[in-house]
Amino acid sequence: MSLKETVLNQCERAKEAALQIAAVNTDVKNIVLDELADDLKKNSKQIIAANKKDLSANKKLPAAMLKRLEINDAKIKEMCDMVRSVAKQEDPAGKTISEMELDEELTLQKITVPIGVIGCIFESRPEVVVQIAALAIKSGNAVLLKGGKEALNSNLALVEVIRTSIEDNQGMPADTVQLLETREEVKQVLKMDDFIDLLIPRGSNELVKYIQSNTKIPVLGHADGICHVYVDKHADINKAMKIAVDSKTQYAAVCNAMENLVVHKDAAQEFIPKITNTFLKMGVEVRADSKSFNIIKKNKTIPLREIHKATEKDWKTEYNEEIISIKVVDTINEAVDFINKHGSHHTDAIVTEEKAEAQMFINFVDSSSVVHNASTRFADGFRYGLGAEVGISTNKVHARGPVGLEGLVITKFILRGIDHIVDDYAKGKKKFTHKKK
Amino acid sequence: MSLKETVLNQCERAKEAALQIAAVNTDVKNIVLDELADDLKKNSKQIIAANKKDLSANKKLPAAMLKRLEINDAKIKEMCDMVRSVAKQEDPAGKTISEMELDEELTLQKITVPIGVIGCIFESRPEVVVQIAALAIKSGNAVLLKGGKEALNSNLALVEVIRTSIEDNQGMPADTVQLLETREEVKQVLKMDDFIDLLIPRGSNELVKYIQSNTKIPVLGHADGICHVYVDKHADINKAMKIAVDSKTQYAAVCNAMENLVVHKDAAQEFIPKITNTFLKMGVEVRADSKSFNIIKKNKTIPLREIHKATEKDWKTEYNEEIISIKVVDTINEAVDFINKHGSHHTDAIVTEEKAEAQMFINFVDSSSVVHNASTRFADGFRYGLGAEVGISTNKVHARGPVGLEGLVITKFILRGIDHIVDDYAKGKKKFTHKKK
Repeated sequence: MSLKETVLNQCERAKEAALQIAAVNTDVKNIVLDELADDLKKNSKQIIAANKKDLSANKKLPAAMLKRLEINDAKIKEMCDMVRSVAKQEDPAGKTISEMELDEELTLQKITVPIGVIGCIFESRPEVVVQIAALAIKSGNAVLLKGGKEALNSNLALVEVIRTSIEDNQGMPADTVQLLETREEVKQVLKMDDFIDLLIPRGSNELVKYIQSNTKIPVLGHADGICHVYVDKHADINKAMKIAVDSKTQYAAVCNAMENLVVHKDAAQEFIPKITNTFLKMGVEVRADSKSFNIIKKNKTIPLREIHKATEKDWKTEYNEEIISIKVVDTINEAVDFINKHGSHHTDAIVTEEKAEAQMFINFVDSSSVVHNASTRFADGFRYGLGAEVGISTNKVHARGPVGLEGLVITKFILRGIDHIVDDYAKGKKKFTHKKK
Repeated sequence: MSLKETVLNQCERAKEAALQIAAVNTDVKNIVLDELADDLKKNSKQIIAANKKDLSANKKLPAAMLKRLEINDAKIKEMCDMVRSVAKQEDPAGKTISEMELDEELTLQKITVPIGVIGCIFESRPEVVVQIAALAIKSGNAVLLKGGKEALNSNLALVEVIRTSIEDNQGMPADTVQLLETREEVKQVLKMDDFIDLLIPRGSNELVKYIQSNTKIPVLGHADGICHVYVDKHADINKAMKIAVDSKTQYAAVCNAMENLVVHKDAAQEFIPKITNTFLKMGVEVRADSKSFNIIKKNKTIPLREIHKATEKDWKTEYNEEIISIKVVDTINEAVDFINKHGSHHTDAIVTEEKAEAQMFINFVDSSSVVHNASTRFADGFRYGLGAEVGISTNKVHARGPVGLEGLVITKFILRGIDHIVDDYAKGKKKFTHKKK
């Protein structure tokens, strides 16, 4: 088979599996997940052996990447825990959203159903395979997984375990979870809009942007994560310090870390020298706009040569590393406008003791998560109590913010009548009652 | 200004308006809608005069199209009623979807918010302007409207009334509703993915397909409406007759009319000659597969020269006129497979007296509406009790089926803390409680 035929064949099998798994009941799906957790533990030696192959073939990767690639007993345990926690979550499919009597013996129900076939393209971390597979099984979707080539042996071993766990159970097709093995397959996948209902890319901004620009399939996710902390004039400076430090440095390489720090002019004189000193001590590079630069200059304790000037480009850059840009604003409105204009609508926080200011920020900042007096780093499926996440979406349709099981379903209308026809209503013989149940 | 600059300027104003109207409360939005209903009535002479210009400039159009274009007092009254009915619907924005305590004094809320800027591209019927504007105002979205050039004067007059009604009210920007005036602007609009959050095309399949293929903006709607009625072996033949006739002929030119009639072999001997006779008498052209052709042949009452043979192409064609294709199947499974393969996942019905068969059809037919013992023609926002609709979606993400106010909102997470940071949880100093409220 050519590459195109291989992908087409996998897509057809995924679509077939999707129609079947959509009708599998919650108990069976939970049994599969429990067995999967058991099977991951039982097969840990084979999985770790396969992972060793990947590790030794990729010795030249940076240490941080190798750590992300590595599977050890602790990681296997984490995967098992995660799978069991997904099993415990409520089934998002099959819920009745609304019910209405349209007329006597004519009732309309809106229920949730699985989306169908989901394509997930991700880089490095092999545990993503288990996470996405677990969410797909629980929500009743079929999934096509494409991982990074450096993790191929690990991914193959994990998918084999998953497919075996599925296959042991009545009515569940193993093709619910399939792996695409080569990089070239991604291009083919992007063309499969007749088969794939939703794409979820997890990886670099470049990967996400490439996918968004090269497919007709809806894409769930985010390219940039340019998050802000705004320190209001009514901020408690100690809280602002704590929140700014955590938002920037708790883990700088991720999408919900702060990139731009916005400070009200009335808080700036005290806060900016303090946070600048702290950041410099922690090894964070500081890029200041002219107002904050002048404040730092007046404060003689900071060596000015260590302060860079922020440019327009800085406000729109996701550093993903230990760099912070600082901006001073005259009003909260200016802060809101700045964030709406330069941010990526991902996660933005305000530090203030004034409820009215906080509410104004919450109302007008157009982001997937808006935070009051807490770190931007909380924006994550696990911390938000979703069990696991398929990713964080900055889309304005379907699902926004950390996306768990609920983002993997769509609705279906079911209309039940006796022999109802529209002509009776068009001619006025009958009238709709439209009673909500 | 160049065309591109004009469109960019309108998009910027729409985005500005969207941020403002998102924070307007329900009462103010309802006042605007009530005033709009009053103003439409007050300005009916000007609106009808503008519409007369369009009618006399387009005399060569077919009578049916002219009728769709015409605005008279009755249509003005319908528009007023519709606007008042939208005012009475529940505000879809600002609802709390879920609330969770993540830890002491750290609470997460998921609320509904307007999507932002919606672009609506539609053909002919000018009342769509009022319908979409009313839904946009109620849900707190800004809207860019592009109507057909044949209705330009009518659309301009309606938009002027709408903008005046908006402007009279505190905090509501007139730019919530804007009209794009020339056809060339559509191409520019499709590129405005930085400003427009959702496109809703309402018109021919060609228009929808063109838009879907030429933009990165999410598109809500459907291209084809290939709907089926399946007559099961346990069908009551009288009900099947009634439902098939209504689904095909009540209004053949619309997306929820039946195109393919699928009949179980055990019902075929009685049902097919009967329905064929009825359809022929009503002027519906019948295209039969070989099995149904043979049944018709055996039944000597039908002139065979009037029966066409159905080809593979027929199963995938939305006629939008008085043509029906008939297919005989051996099992309900074959019917389900046929519908999933050839249909457009819009609206499909089963006629059966057996609940188990109905449930099987409901579970496995992958369409936005699945109907038991009623006409496919019910799939419509008004009949479904949504007040009005922006369109019918066959998307598998965001909103599916007839889309009213609920399809015009998305969610936002709001996290409120005291001074919570992630590092405390990462280091195990604190633990999440994740208590649902």
